[in-house]
Amino acid sequence: MARQNIYDNEIFFEGYKKIRENEANANDLFEIPTLFSMLPDLKGKSVLDLGCGFGEHCTRFVASGAEKVVGIDISERMLEVARKENSAPEITYLNMPMEDISQLSEHFDVVVSSLALHYVEDFADVIRNVYDLLEKGGVFIFSQEHPLCTCHSGGDRWTRDENGNKLHVNIAHYGVEGERELVWFVDHVKTYHRTFSTIMNTLIQAGFTIEEVIEPLPTEELLKHYPQYEDLFHKPDFMLVRVCK
Amino acid sequence: MARQNIYDNEIFFEGYKKIRENEANANDLFEIPTLFSMLPDLKGKSVLDLGCGFGEHCTRFVASGAEKVVGIDISERMLEVARKENSAPEITYLNMPMEDISQLSEHFDVVVSSLALHYVEDFADVIRNVYDLLEKGGVFIFSQEHPLCTCHSGGDRWTRDENGNKLHVNIAHYGVEGERELVWFVDHVKTYHRTFSTIMNTLIQAGFTIEEVIEPLPTEELLKHYPQYEDLFHKPDFMLVRVCK
Repeated sequence: MARQNIYDNEIFFEGYKKIRENEANANDLFEIPTLFSMLPDLKGKSVLDLGCGFGEHCTRFVASGAEKVVGIDISERMLEVARKENSAPEITYLNMPMEDISQLSEHFDVVVSSLALHYVEDFADVIRNVYDLLEKGGVFIFSQEHPLCTCHSGGDRWTRDENGNKLHVNIAHYGVEGERELVWFVDHVKTYHRTFSTIMNTLIQAGFTIEEVIEPLPTEELLKHYPQYEDLFHKPDFMLVRVCK
Repeated sequence: MARQNIYDNEIFFEGYKKIRENEANANDLFEIPTLFSMLPDLKGKSVLDLGCGFGEHCTRFVASGAEKVVGIDISERMLEVARKENSAPEITYLNMPMEDISQLSEHFDVVVSSLALHYVEDFADVIRNVYDLLEKGGVFIFSQEHPLCTCHSGGDRWTRDENGNKLHVNIAHYGVEGERELVWFVDHVKTYHRTFSTIMNTLIQAGFTIEEVIEPLPTEELLKHYPQYEDLFHKPDFMLVRVCK
């Protein structure tokens, strides 16, 4: 089973750091606020963060009252930054691919994963392991690239008019699941496409109850400041799901 | 609230009857087999069919052991055919828009709706009423046009190569919910677009548990006979959902 560790690639790492530093990026405007809006009250709770990256979310979980936070990431390079910039007595960082979480011996009240699951080949296996790691009544909240993004398999993603304005998104092979190779800072970044129904059914078959699904869209207020995100009405960038055990 | 009764329009009715008589139509190959595969054992059960049309499904529910079947449809013209071709002592046909089902006084073990809900403007209201009509533990199974179809708001649906082969589907305004007017035999057929997340969240908020979601795709075997359905891999035509109370 391939376990991709693209975040330890230097060119990728520097490129990724740069977009995360840009204040108007889609993560900060849509994905992160939506993810945090879906969290339960974390007071006194234990939280596992799958693909914690630089650890910013872990720090926020502690600020929200979490008693214990474990952040795992496949990239030691990301965790070095996390340990420097987002350390706290409540937080433990572990260098571990999320395919290996069955090795964790503790249980958690809340599991969170921000934009990491579309890198995982065996989604069903990770979901089953998350279910096993959760306390009864625990919740799992994750974000991923929207299935209308992950299905992309080359060619132009958008059709534009003569002025470069986006007219529509070009969707092909939505029904063909599996690996996609794309260029994002470096060649050969691998993501895995799954249809909406596969994502839902995999969660249900693992034993979870679906509680909420969100495809974030810009508000009118936000569009005044960032008109470039109008195109999310054609194709949302993210999908977020909350399920409970 | 608009309650569209396009099926009583003569031109629409005749055109619709013709495609339903064509043996290789997508309903017969994908939607109907999938819908029936999602049904529970109907032996001794009471079934409500929302938008029963010609009543073919009602006859099959009885053949599968259903004790009582109520088929409702907004179109009296459709029900005339149903009463002639699909009558049985167990079946009652009622001329009623599905927006009015709160007027029914009985309860049901199973509610089914085949390709009718995308004509309904107030989805949440119908879903709440279905929940109220179901016995505890009852199931609701419905099919609708896939959200990648219902979002269509004019222009070419497909981009083709010089030989007319479909390259990709042109998706715009997926995030803009609400009314769409389309031409299907007659002008001004109204359908209502809702995103995946709205469909899921509406069901959840009504109290339902999501049990299964299916976006039917052709098997290899089927493609040998009907290669024209290869394009479903770009954009499924249908989405089916099973929920329980």
